[in-house]
Amino acid sequence: MKVAFIGLGVMGYPMAGHLQRAGLAVTVYNRTIAKAQAWVAEYGGAFAETPAAAAATADIVLMCVGNDDDLRAVSLGSDGAVAAMRQGTLLVDHTTASAEIARELHASCAAAGIGFLDAPVSGGEQGALNGQLTIMCGGDESAFTEARSVLDIYAKQLRWMGPAGSGQLTKMVNQICIAGLLQGLSEALNFATRAGLDVEEVVAAISQGAAQSWQMDNRHATMAAGSYEHGFAVDWMRKDLAICLGEAERNGASLPVTALVDQFYKEVQQMGGSRWDTSSLLARLDK
Amino acid sequence: MKVAFIGLGVMGYPMAGHLQRAGLAVTVYNRTIAKAQAWVAEYGGAFAETPAAAAATADIVLMCVGNDDDLRAVSLGSDGAVAAMRQGTLLVDHTTASAEIARELHASCAAAGIGFLDAPVSGGEQGALNGQLTIMCGGDESAFTEARSVLDIYAKQLRWMGPAGSGQLTKMVNQICIAGLLQGLSEALNFATRAGLDVEEVVAAISQGAAQSWQMDNRHATMAAGSYEHGFAVDWMRKDLAICLGEAERNGASLPVTALVDQFYKEVQQMGGSRWDTSSLLARLDK
Amino acid sequence: MKVAFIGLGVMGYPMAGHLQRAGLAVTVYNRTIAKAQAWVAEYGGAFAETPAAAAATADIVLMCVGNDDDLRAVSLGSDGAVAAMRQGTLLVDHTTASAEIARELHASCAAAGIGFLDAPVSGGEQGALNGQLTIMCGGDESAFTEARSVLDIYAKQLRWMGPAGSGQLTKMVNQICIAGLLQGLSEALNFATRAGLDVEEVVAAISQGAAQSWQMDNRHATMAAGSYEHGFAVDWMRKDLAICLGEAERNGASLPVTALVDQFYKEVQQMGGSRWDTSSLLARLDK
Amino acid sequence: MKVAFIGLGVMGYPMAGHLQRAGLAVTVYNRTIAKAQAWVAEYGGAFAETPAAAAATADIVLMCVGNDDDLRAVSLGSDGAVAAMRQGTLLVDHTTASAEIARELHASCAAAGIGFLDAPVSGGEQGALNGQLTIMCGGDESAFTEARSVLDIYAKQLRWMGPAGSGQLTKMVNQICIAGLLQGLSEALNFATRAGLDVEEVVAAISQGAAQSWQMDNRHATMAAGSYEHGFAVDWMRKDLAICLGEAERNGASLPVTALVDQFYKEVQQMGGSRWDTSSLLARLDK
Ligand SMILES: NC(=O)C1=CN([C@@H]2O[C@H](COP(=O)(O)OP(=O)(O)OC[C@H]3O[C@@H](n4cnc5c(N)ncnc54)[C@H](OP(=O)(O)O)[C@@H]3O)[C@@H](O)[C@H]2O)C=CC1
Ligand SMILES: NC(=O)C1=CN([C@@H]2O[C@H](COP(=O)(O)OP(=O)(O)OC[C@H]3O[C@@H](n4cnc5c(N)ncnc54)[C@H](OP(=O)(O)O)[C@@H]3O)[C@@H](O)[C@H]2O)C=CC1
Ligand SMILES: NC(=O)C1=CN([C@@H]2O[C@H](COP(=O)(O)OP(=O)(O)OC[C@H]3O[C@@H](n4cnc5c(N)ncnc54)[C@H](OP(=O)(O)O)[C@@H]3O)[C@@H](O)[C@H]2O)C=CC1
Repeated sequence: MKVAFIGLGVMGYPMAGHLQRAGLAVTVYNRTIAKAQAWVAEYGGAFAETPAAAAATADIVLMCVGNDDDLRAVSLGSDGAVAAMRQGTLLVDHTTASAEIARELHASCAAAGIGFLDAPVSGGEQGALNGQLTIMCGGDESAFTEARSVLDIYAKQLRWMGPAGSGQLTKMVNQICIAGLLQGLSEALNFATRAGLDVEEVVAAISQGAAQSWQMDNRHATMAAGSYEHGFAVDWMRKDLAICLGEAERNGASLPVTALVDQFYKEVQQMGGSRWDTSSLLARLDK
Repeated sequence: MKVAFIGLGVMGYPMAGHLQRAGLAVTVYNRTIAKAQAWVAEYGGAFAETPAAAAATADIVLMCVGNDDDLRAVSLGSDGAVAAMRQGTLLVDHTTASAEIARELHASCAAAGIGFLDAPVSGGEQGALNGQLTIMCGGDESAFTEARSVLDIYAKQLRWMGPAGSGQLTKMVNQICIAGLLQGLSEALNFATRAGLDVEEVVAAISQGAAQSWQMDNRHATMAAGSYEHGFAVDWMRKDLAICLGEAERNGASLPVTALVDQFYKEVQQMGGSRWDTSSLLARLDK
Repeated sequence: MKVAFIGLGVMGYPMAGHLQRAGLAVTVYNRTIAKAQAWVAEYGGAFAETPAAAAATADIVLMCVGNDDDLRAVSLGSDGAVAAMRQGTLLVDHTTASAEIARELHASCAAAGIGFLDAPVSGGEQGALNGQLTIMCGGDESAFTEARSVLDIYAKQLRWMGPAGSGQLTKMVNQICIAGLLQGLSEALNFATRAGLDVEEVVAAISQGAAQSWQMDNRHATMAAGSYEHGFAVDWMRKDLAICLGEAERNGASLPVTALVDQFYKEVQQMGGSRWDTSSLLARLDK
Repeated sequence: MKVAFIGLGVMGYPMAGHLQRAGLAVTVYNRTIAKAQAWVAEYGGAFAETPAAAAATADIVLMCVGNDDDLRAVSLGSDGAVAAMRQGTLLVDHTTASAEIARELHASCAAAGIGFLDAPVSGGEQGALNGQLTIMCGGDESAFTEARSVLDIYAKQLRWMGPAGSGQLTKMVNQICIAGLLQGLSEALNFATRAGLDVEEVVAAISQGAAQSWQMDNRHATMAAGSYEHGFAVDWMRKDLAICLGEAERNGASLPVTALVDQFYKEVQQMGGSRWDTSSLLARLDK
């Protein structure tokens, strides 16, 4: 099977690598060509100079770029993938983007006889490197069935969530959970420190009960150490929260704490924390 | 060993029962005597008509009442336990109360040659029934060592956190984590429903990653069903958050989201949700 | 002097009327032609069928439409005003819109030898009817000097705030003040009612001191009566707050309470309050 | 008429002075005797060594101390005023305190045949110095009628608000208004500065419309200058907000933004701003 992979960032680079290693014939495209060349040097396969060139001969085209605008550029822009793709092929988008652009791409693809899945991921750089991502898919169930065997290569968990946009909506639910949770955790750890408690001991005591969270388990130690140079960046989080807040305008959901925490993240950006892990909400309180 | 147990509420009743079943000679005291009589009918042991009477012959006295005022009444009030206890015995308090009263009781006990531990628990009614509580202890480490074998009878986890008050402070950290976390989860599930997603599927997709929490695992189904007649009551949560906010006045921790969510809980109370589970923050958004 | 006025809504209709009454030769344009015809029937003057037609012979073109998109349509779209205007004329925009589109229009006009002012207003329907608006202008000071005599016709206060966009930025400051202020006032009046106080008496007592505000003076009576069918609509306010929050992304200002109150306004919309006055934040608390 | 004045702080000192200057025979009491001596040196009159001694011969006793505890000490404590007062006399409290203690004092006084008014003030140090305070009274209307002529000496406005506690409740409404309002104003001025606007010009433009407030009129200049060494101290404000939040527990009012801003004030305290004016919320955002 011939595969094109568009966008070799922190996530896309290793994801595309897993596909090539699994024996698929992968052609990559990356805006900055050096990264595509490095990828070919590391994994073999081929690279193309435009999304269209990469997509032209592919049975399935996968994308992982930054945001809605980037996505529009590589898929629908001039030299974009969609116009080059053959009928009966599949386009899968791993970018965390809006549900609206997912629906727009689904419609454009449908008109061209191409299947489309919005398939944002979670699991971070680590999940991409280990091929242990969670992939939440929206689109036609038949397209999901077809794409399965390819996506499984880097998935720990792979799920069809409903019609076009449902993958993105699911990812939004994920991010909304995290914002409030991390602010609560940050207030708690800040309180613990000021109360003179040993954070490690406190977490050992409470991490098997009602206060437990993945973030507590996986981030308390770096938070206690004030170390944020890792993980999922505040800038990405704010991009995602803007998508959530925008979608909530359409569905009417009230997001008071999410909106508030989003402003707190802006304060983290102002502190120089644009690339810090999302757990750096604690840094605001520690100032 | 002779044990006194003061306060046979939802938590204390089964906790005292575990001690008696484990072969200790338990004398219980409860303000409403009928409950003490029921307890004796169920478990054997004895009951006393005052805290002092229960405590007089005990090697270790355990308390689990409602709040600071209740605690002061049964321990330091007339017919309270402390005045009746013998030198060299131990007083252990399982009430979720302030760190201040813990320090006050520790000092009163020290003056009387009695060891004291503040030992709030988490794990809820279920944990009390199953003898699977987490117990966070503050006080002298020697008192902790002495009390261990008794407390282990109903503990899943038992930890010494530091000097007097440290058990209560640890419990506060636990509650602060939960407030923000549950508001985030509520906003997320409300969003999911309005977005037309299947909550069960969404949770299946995201509950192994960065958004995961004990509350998500254990409460999403009841939340999606709008069922709140179980669990840890909003009234209790607000009592605990008041303690957290009060202690934060002393240590200077800023708790913006905790304070905000505490007001949201008040709105839940106004909706008739005083006895609902803490996950009922969702009910506000669903109105 | 020949004047074109584009957009005969709640605000534009009476504003254009003042100009015609003051003796200027006004040609109006409105998307829905019936309103333009009604205006001519009421005031005299002329109407045109496109913005371009209205603008072609004008010395000064004034616009007052809904939002950025509307503005782009009537100014830069096909049959838009800018392409039809002669060199040396002036374009003035009264829409509450983004600073970005103000800068974009300023640049397009400059390239065509046209002066441009962003000139959002405050004072509401009443101010438009009475010709008592506050007008905050951004753009070249020379353009401001030229436009003065025309704008003065419906102004109580007219100010040049700085370069292109400064009028809009000033209006944003205005709206940010109002959001937090009205939530505070709503919490206070809700508290007063629940405390059994007479709101009228309370306001009489406190409205000459540190708690005083225009909103307290002018809205307490309708708020106490639960009457919101008047004033500045929640939908407009949310449009404006979205502009504020967007601009704050660029300048880095943290707007925690503004963002939170914006979500509360969404809840008012969900209650059916899209057209209610901004003081209807109280209705959320009164539920 | 013989008057006693208890508490010669920033407020009480000049208030008592106005009474003496108006020709009343004033005996003062202050815990720190040096201040009472300084007062007598400045105004004449007499000082007493206990509240009881000052109150014993007075027709009307006025108090202005810090908080509930202080108030209980000087009125009901040993050597307190109440026990010393004669039947048919009046006790008036100017402290900003809880409605509960007002009701408690009203009841104690009633039992002793003494009239009682809770009569908190607004207007600040300036108002006290100029005798231009707003006084909000709760208690029996007959007591209000009797006290009028004395209170008028330092009042700009004097109002009877209802039964015991109503003066305090009215003052709470005042403080709740201010918290949200000042946070909104702070966000707005911070935004203005970051947007490159001239704050003085902005305020000139918007201060006659819907965004206007006493705080905007009277504090924008010091806020823009980052000068907070004046006005009503953050520590006092937090004492008052704690009273508001406490009372709201009883009447069920939800105070989300008030509770949030109260935490922001705590951050100001942590920045060293305990004595800064309440407008120093801006300092948090300017960091
Ligand atoms: N990082 C993480 O932990 C996670 C990220 N995500 C999401 O995955 C997506 C990718 O993230 P990540 O890999 O970290 O991002 P990176 O910034 O590392 O990579 C972005 C990729 O997109 C390409 N790109 C951006 N804009 C354009 C454009 N206009 N035209 C062509 N190519 C473009 C970049 O090309 P170039 O190399 O030329 O800049 C690069 O290959 C984002 O939506 C992110 O939110 C999801 C889960 C976890
Ligand atoms: N109402 C108020 O109290 C205040 C309003 N403002 C601001 O002033 C502006 C106007 O408000 P208001 O007059 O109340 O609004 P209205 O909704 O009453 O009027 C809007 C006007 O814009 C026209 N319009 C909208 N979209 C287009 C388009 N795409 N092409 C052509 N014309 C269009 C409408 O035409 P049509 O008749 O065909 O729909 C109508 O004339 C807004 O930006 C508002 O925020 C500022 C201060 C106070
Ligand atoms: N300052 C302001 O702008 C405003 C203040 N208020 C309110 O007025 C009240 C007084 O404020 P202010 O005058 O500024 O406060 P100060 O701190 O300047 O004065 C407090 C007074 O209370 C006395 N006092 C405190 N505790 C006791 C006690 N246990 N026994 C005896 N006397 C005691 C102090 O005595 P000593 O001299 O011995 O310390 C002092 O005379 C407060 O409730 C405040 O909230 C209201 C409006 C404005």
